[in-house]
Amino acid sequence: MVARWGQLLQQSAIWKGVFCERPPSLDGQTAEACFDEADRCGKPLVCGFYKRFDPAFQFLYRQVHEEHALGQIHRIAAVSSLYPAASPAFLKRAGGIFYNAAVHDVDVISMLLGESVPDAVFALGHAFCSDMASLKEADTVVISMKFPGGVLVSLDVSQHCTDSCDQRLEVRGSQGTLRMENQNSLGITGHGPSLSLCPQTQAGRYQDAYRELFRHFVRTLKGTEPPQVTKEQLLRAIQVVATAEQSWRSRSAVNLPSEVAEASVVKTEAP
Amino acid sequence: MVARWGQLLQQSAIWKGVFCERPPSLDGQTAEACFDEADRCGKPLVCGFYKRFDPAFQFLYRQVHEEHALGQIHRIAAVSSLYPAASPAFLKRAGGIFYNAAVHDVDVISMLLGESVPDAVFALGHAFCSDMASLKEADTVVISMKFPGGVLVSLDVSQHCTDSCDQRLEVRGSQGTLRMENQNSLGITGHGPSLSLCPQTQAGRYQDAYRELFRHFVRTLKGTEPPQVTKEQLLRAIQVVATAEQSWRSRSAVNLPSEVAEASVVKTEAP
Amino acid sequence: MVARWGQLLQQSAIWKGVFCERPPSLDGQTAEACFDEADRCGKPLVCGFYKRFDPAFQFLYRQVHEEHALGQIHRIAAVSSLYPAASPAFLKRAGGIFYNAAVHDVDVISMLLGESVPDAVFALGHAFCSDMASLKEADTVVISMKFPGGVLVSLDVSQHCTDSCDQRLEVRGSQGTLRMENQNSLGITGHGPSLSLCPQTQAGRYQDAYRELFRHFVRTLKGTEPPQVTKEQLLRAIQVVATAEQSWRSRSAVNLPSEVAEASVVKTEAP
Amino acid sequence: MVARWGQLLQQSAIWKGVFCERPPSLDGQTAEACFDEADRCGKPLVCGFYKRFDPAFQFLYRQVHEEHALGQIHRIAAVSSLYPAASPAFLKRAGGIFYNAAVHDVDVISMLLGESVPDAVFALGHAFCSDMASLKEADTVVISMKFPGGVLVSLDVSQHCTDSCDQRLEVRGSQGTLRMENQNSLGITGHGPSLSLCPQTQAGRYQDAYRELFRHFVRTLKGTEPPQVTKEQLLRAIQVVATAEQSWRSRSAVNLPSEVAEASVVKTEAP
Repeated sequence: MVARWGQLLQQSAIWKGVFCERPPSLDGQTAEACFDEADRCGKPLVCGFYKRFDPAFQFLYRQVHEEHALGQIHRIAAVSSLYPAASPAFLKRAGGIFYNAAVHDVDVISMLLGESVPDAVFALGHAFCSDMASLKEADTVVISMKFPGGVLVSLDVSQHCTDSCDQRLEVRGSQGTLRMENQNSLGITGHGPSLSLCPQTQAGRYQDAYRELFRHFVRTLKGTEPPQVTKEQLLRAIQVVATAEQSWRSRSAVNLPSEVAEASVVKTEAP
Repeated sequence: MVARWGQLLQQSAIWKGVFCERPPSLDGQTAEACFDEADRCGKPLVCGFYKRFDPAFQFLYRQVHEEHALGQIHRIAAVSSLYPAASPAFLKRAGGIFYNAAVHDVDVISMLLGESVPDAVFALGHAFCSDMASLKEADTVVISMKFPGGVLVSLDVSQHCTDSCDQRLEVRGSQGTLRMENQNSLGITGHGPSLSLCPQTQAGRYQDAYRELFRHFVRTLKGTEPPQVTKEQLLRAIQVVATAEQSWRSRSAVNLPSEVAEASVVKTEAP
Repeated sequence: MVARWGQLLQQSAIWKGVFCERPPSLDGQTAEACFDEADRCGKPLVCGFYKRFDPAFQFLYRQVHEEHALGQIHRIAAVSSLYPAASPAFLKRAGGIFYNAAVHDVDVISMLLGESVPDAVFALGHAFCSDMASLKEADTVVISMKFPGGVLVSLDVSQHCTDSCDQRLEVRGSQGTLRMENQNSLGITGHGPSLSLCPQTQAGRYQDAYRELFRHFVRTLKGTEPPQVTKEQLLRAIQVVATAEQSWRSRSAVNLPSEVAEASVVKTEAP
Repeated sequence: MVARWGQLLQQSAIWKGVFCERPPSLDGQTAEACFDEADRCGKPLVCGFYKRFDPAFQFLYRQVHEEHALGQIHRIAAVSSLYPAASPAFLKRAGGIFYNAAVHDVDVISMLLGESVPDAVFALGHAFCSDMASLKEADTVVISMKFPGGVLVSLDVSQHCTDSCDQRLEVRGSQGTLRMENQNSLGITGHGPSLSLCPQTQAGRYQDAYRELFRHFVRTLKGTEPPQVTKEQLLRAIQVVATAEQSWRSRSAVNLPSEVAEASVVKTEAP
């Protein structure tokens, strides 16, 4: 069952489990309530943070966390440009580029940094597309964050790819650098006037990740494994993107207390 | 059923079909007899020319044959270095590097050139490994061929990869160039003293091709499609590698008549 | 003559001209006075913004400004990591990483954007090296800026390269993308345990730029061309890095008025 | 002084030295006589084997010979495609693609292999351009050679580049691999419909090599160093390309005696 978050509370009682295709509610309190309700019913609630399931990200994660191949992490820079772009109406309904796109990158970056939360967040944004501007949403944002230990993170999210999605992640540490570049899985290159090497859509790029996420959901339904994304992880990601959006709208940096228990930023879901 | 070629004639009668894992018999006449026997029994005989089933090769093939993206073909250069290397004993039994490895490259090159046969063949070879030398086999060969229309082909086959297989194919035409490079399917790069980015084995590189080949075999068993490799294609590939080996051993070039019907080169299968 | 900025006023009278090796004074007013004094004496004052003279940057600039190859600019992302790192004592004297390094990137980015000034500036920084921390300077900073027209700029400056400098610039526009990657001017790649492909120092990377800058200085001495960097350009670059440093130290974003005439941020030069 | 080889004998007496822009005479005996005459007059004779002076080749040479970074050499594969193509009339006069182009690659490959001579040579060629065909010259050739120690060499020389020259060299050894790829000295990449990243001509690619070669000539005139290319090296290169051309025209492989003193292949210079 694939459900919108708002209808969750009623439905989880009669279904075997719930799969939330996307970074769920725009409102931390509702999201929390959903998790609690699912818990109460003993049903799995699986949040669709698909980037965690991407084989390239998982390889990079293992190098960083299991092999300790980079030493102390200094910098993370992510580029996440969607192709094709989401329509303005869809993006508005989904809570804007922060909730629709950035939240996935925030999730994997937090994971890479040992499930931590930034101390400081600042976001700049702009709508180059006039339809987006008229909806008061941005189509291009740059989020800067500082995490405990001093790690500096830049997150560059946009909808303006000319012909192929652009999904990169670079991690620099005291001992080396790892990059997840745009993929050319067939290894085909070439040049010539009649040559059109195929562009990559977001769906094509993350096909393996979606498959693994779905298999994970099936395993949670069978009860052979618990949902990978916990309530705390989901609330943290929502908290960070809410803070980033607040920073963008207020044109000011937000310094988070080290304890973010009392999340104060709440956004009501778009109708 | 996966069978060695020599036992084929007896077995095809009682089995549903035959899958020859590798470039079958070293002897064209036996190979031909097998096909004829399979035909007589109405059973599919599937030859394991796995490189045809590789998605990267298929993409390149479509660009060349369906999109005509390169114009007239001038040059093809292939590099095919195995990792890990086959053991000398195995290689000897399999008919040497020509029958064990080069035959697959000859097959896909012939396919790219419209199922054609070279006019001239010359091969150089050497055994850098002393075990191979003592078996009178080469572990590194370079085969040069000229095909009808003037296309010049180089085929560089070896067993000396230091840490990863090396599988490349370059096609140059009057309108452009296409290259199938070594694959880095995850798109991960990096540097640092503790970093070990995973080497690629031959089996890993062609995993998708093997899967597709196997599915093809299953479909032939079900009768939903005929074997893709025909008797003529198999005999042609055997003929070309037999000629190349002959050229290497005799240190002379072989000019083939345009009609290769009366294939004169026959090699008896190693025990 | 290569002089420190502070001694400039006295010396320009007796010399033929002044070459300021680096992003001159940390104080806009002094810098302005220097330019005015040089002007009064009719001597050229050449500011060492060497990145303007880099052939790769110039190629990119021409594509953007003369060929209009990218359409409307949306994003600029620069990485500027020094190798070898400046010593903490030197960096402190030079005004920190903002005045020693970031100022050059700010200069070329302003140039790419038609000599414009950002509306908003935010910087995060950290000292991973304890010597830097004890001097209250950062060795890694990330500067986010928004320029008129909505262009979002990220500038990633650091001193933590493991084995080679890292100098990249990416410009994305409505019609395409251009990247200035790290250079491998010989085009040599390879792998093997005994292989050490040479690392690139900052001086090696910008050797051609330094040569061109010096030739430019000689031409200004001969009077055959005026200094390329004007007083206004220099003051603008100083203004931007001063704002960025202020943002970093105050942990808050700075929104600049569109008219930056009355530059309020002044930093006294370190002794 | 830049002279054609044929006029050399008369002129060396009155000039300070002779620079032969290209792989000199097509005839070993004349070339030898020239060297002897220059010797008798005590004047330097500098042969324009410019590829020896290319910084990328020199780096690769040092890695192989001084650092022994690759262990025992197994394979060398060179691609040498000219852009723009030489005109058929020019190519004919210059002795065809073997003497005009391949000779330079033969020179550097011999150098890499410790100034050695191949045991076996085989060449295939074709004229895709009808003007070339009517002159009975090839515009695309593939030369295979086996050198002492078993090293297998492929040399792919052509005039059919669609938009940029193609100059690559790959050396594989028991311990690793080195590649000299096509150069992108500025490190600029990009994509977009209005983007035209500059193609590279042969002259542009080897600009540094030509400069170094010319400086070398000047130093020989001043007597501060002897000519780098010796008579023996020149005769050897001519011998190898003459053999390759003979192989192409006769469609047969040539096995060279280990002692090539009595070079039997002589070609008269085109008028």
